[in-house]
Amino acid sequence: MHKLETEIGSVVDRLLTDYQGGRTIDEVKTFDLPDNDVIEDVLRSLQRIIFPGYFRNRTFKVYTVRNQISMLLEDVIYRLIKQIAIVLRFSEGCAHLDDAAITEKAEALTFAFLDKIPKIREYIDTDVQAAFDGDPAATSKTEVIYSYPGLYAILVNRIAHELFVLGVPMIPRIMTEHAHSRTGIDIHPGATIGKYFFIDHGTGIVIGETTTIGDNVKIYQGVTLGALSTRGGQALRNKKRHPTIEDNVTIYSGASILGGETVIGRDAVIGGNAFITRSVPAGARVSIQNPELRVNFDPKHPSSPKPLAQDDAWFYII
Amino acid sequence: MHKLETEIGSVVDRLLTDYQGGRTIDEVKTFDLPDNDVIEDVLRSLQRIIFPGYFRNRTFKVYTVRNQISMLLEDVIYRLIKQIAIVLRFSEGCAHLDDAAITEKAEALTFAFLDKIPKIREYIDTDVQAAFDGDPAATSKTEVIYSYPGLYAILVNRIAHELFVLGVPMIPRIMTEHAHSRTGIDIHPGATIGKYFFIDHGTGIVIGETTTIGDNVKIYQGVTLGALSTRGGQALRNKKRHPTIEDNVTIYSGASILGGETVIGRDAVIGGNAFITRSVPAGARVSIQNPELRVNFDPKHPSSPKPLAQDDAWFYII
Amino acid sequence: MHKLETEIGSVVDRLLTDYQGGRTIDEVKTFDLPDNDVIEDVLRSLQRIIFPGYFRNRTFKVYTVRNQISMLLEDVIYRLIKQIAIVLRFSEGCAHLDDAAITEKAEALTFAFLDKIPKIREYIDTDVQAAFDGDPAATSKTEVIYSYPGLYAILVNRIAHELFVLGVPMIPRIMTEHAHSRTGIDIHPGATIGKYFFIDHGTGIVIGETTTIGDNVKIYQGVTLGALSTRGGQALRNKKRHPTIEDNVTIYSGASILGGETVIGRDAVIGGNAFITRSVPAGARVSIQNPELRVNFDPKHPSSPKPLAQDDAWFYII
Repeated sequence: MHKLETEIGSVVDRLLTDYQGGRTIDEVKTFDLPDNDVIEDVLRSLQRIIFPGYFRNRTFKVYTVRNQISMLLEDVIYRLIKQIAIVLRFSEGCAHLDDAAITEKAEALTFAFLDKIPKIREYIDTDVQAAFDGDPAATSKTEVIYSYPGLYAILVNRIAHELFVLGVPMIPRIMTEHAHSRTGIDIHPGATIGKYFFIDHGTGIVIGETTTIGDNVKIYQGVTLGALSTRGGQALRNKKRHPTIEDNVTIYSGASILGGETVIGRDAVIGGNAFITRSVPAGARVSIQNPELRVNFDPKHPSSPKPLAQDDAWFYII
Repeated sequence: MHKLETEIGSVVDRLLTDYQGGRTIDEVKTFDLPDNDVIEDVLRSLQRIIFPGYFRNRTFKVYTVRNQISMLLEDVIYRLIKQIAIVLRFSEGCAHLDDAAITEKAEALTFAFLDKIPKIREYIDTDVQAAFDGDPAATSKTEVIYSYPGLYAILVNRIAHELFVLGVPMIPRIMTEHAHSRTGIDIHPGATIGKYFFIDHGTGIVIGETTTIGDNVKIYQGVTLGALSTRGGQALRNKKRHPTIEDNVTIYSGASILGGETVIGRDAVIGGNAFITRSVPAGARVSIQNPELRVNFDPKHPSSPKPLAQDDAWFYII
Repeated sequence: MHKLETEIGSVVDRLLTDYQGGRTIDEVKTFDLPDNDVIEDVLRSLQRIIFPGYFRNRTFKVYTVRNQISMLLEDVIYRLIKQIAIVLRFSEGCAHLDDAAITEKAEALTFAFLDKIPKIREYIDTDVQAAFDGDPAATSKTEVIYSYPGLYAILVNRIAHELFVLGVPMIPRIMTEHAHSRTGIDIHPGATIGKYFFIDHGTGIVIGETTTIGDNVKIYQGVTLGALSTRGGQALRNKKRHPTIEDNVTIYSGASILGGETVIGRDAVIGGNAFITRSVPAGARVSIQNPELRVNFDPKHPSSPKPLAQDDAWFYII
């Protein structure tokens, strides 16, 4: 084991030298960093507060609803104030504040966020209804609340969006990346989404920061609501780069809708895999024009059709 | 802190008022709800029962195989009966049953499910073989069992499908959504899948409720076996909305095959990104006919080809 | 309960009989198997070693940096030697080795891997910069390190790739499948990736085993760098089956680039959804040539344009 100890010492020495590189990766933060685990716990508690009849805490059975909600809320408030105070240190506008002022600001932001819970509840109730109405495979609204990844991604977006609008740094993105990891649905907290929103299946969906979505919109797996190009990099920060989707639009799987000036008019239906970089008028139904497929046959296959004598082509176009 | 307490009290008051809205989200379930964590534990135990030589419980080392399996099984049976009893309350057919009758039915369903384990094992053994045979990157069947997400998604589907066929509500979907979250592969528990099934990579795959898949089928990431339209919503419940895939079919990445009357005949090969809404005959090889690409050049780029004098077009089609 | 016990006994009997089938699934491994949970812990510790200023262990606050890193490293070394010793048993080249020789080899591999950490740190620092430079939605490099799934997938690939190159079986793939599960990004540990690599959004990306990627490459969600066909199965093992991407290439969402002889030349830009099976010259900008879309109108929709008298076509092509 003595040889191992020597080797460990020498690896540590090389690492400590490597840490002196002065790069981003070598920085040691002088202030605390947010805690992703705590932020996920806050999301779980908020889920219980938002759906009080569904996600009960098994350890709280003996208390009344008021006591349960008070305890959940106190926990959320305590943790959220602490996490917001941590991330405010990363905000340029707070560089001059002392600890007491940071805490005061974190408290104000936390309560401003809590004021939005009734609005979040109002919207998410319509999303549950939209999923049940829109999916023939849904057997009950309880099943939607319990197991639909699309509903979870929307819930987390609605929570994170309110924090984003209040100007809380980092935490909204940590929340939506947690939902992204769990569902494969990547909605930036900046995206604004109307009522009665339904995401079916959902894996691979990307909804960019400056997207605006109206009421009663339905999107399927693999849809991108994205930017035309991000070559501008940081110079494009805060510019409208992502599309506007008006009310009652349906976007089928794999479609891409790109660009900050692209507007999909109300009642439009966008077909699967369509690639759209210009606006679409209200009521239009857009589909790929030439999805021609070439069908080849193996002449040795028993089911292969026999070619005509004068035509030895073993394929046709459908 | 006194100010905080007052504010918390006022947030609680507003929430309690908001809970009186009479919406789905305001319902308080009068009976218990299923426990997703317990259902995931059951899946883990079933994985050990199905692969007894691979996923050993480190705490059970001193026991014989019989004792280990008995302990695992007793645990599965105890938890599954309890969870099935909970979800049966959501089943219209059980509304009239008292607690004893519900428990009896849950026991019968649990044992009927356990009877299917040898069949599940028979099928999953062929899936391991299919993954090893089909993937040049696979170095051993142990590696397939240990780390292939496609195999995990198929395993969970085979378990959930048997519970689905027995008429157990909600639990099968909770199981497949757990696999969806972990693998990005979304297979509805209603889908019927033959032997020797191979999913490569898998992220983004969607296989709908009424899909039927034959033996020796291979599908890649991003494939959708879906419905043509779900505009009918709940009116389409229990209708055949998803395709039939016959034996020995290969479906490459990104292809969509849609519709309840669409049949992909045996031995067919469907090319990448093909969008198919009609049946394909046996033995056919289908590919996109016109995947024309436009190639532009930046004349300032050092590698850019020089245009002919009479032709200043800086692009060509391949 | 007596009836239940009898039924359990009979299920156990049937299972024990089923285990005698002599199939892969019935094998009982005579040696230990790797532990996915331990391997994930090792990844977490490596993440802290690689970003010492970002992912601090809250329990270590009182120690100096040297002590913290020594403790983390000792833990990584102890666990990695043990896990590598386990997987070496699966390696044909180690079949003849006794326990002491296996341990010695596992120690040598572990230290050879640790020697690569400064190189991994050098590369990942450029990846952080690339994400910040390339994404207008990024507000700080700390946010990139904390919440970008693409950066996590690249980090795990860089770690796993060094173990893969050293010939460690199974563990590299377990690591990358963990990252795949968490991010939806599937990078085989065999893939070789240059500096300043940026993955945006990332869900659905597949990068195959024999892919080579140059410096300053940017790829988006749903991109496949894959094989043309895997019909050869195990016969194709170790052959170059996946493409080569040269320096400064951008590949937009949903594009597929397939085949071991396919080279995307430096500075090329590949458009969204392009399907490429041949090489592309340096500096080229490739896009789908005919993304024609058919736009239909519902004449009853209030926003529907009025058709000309002599033209009752209710659609146009854009």
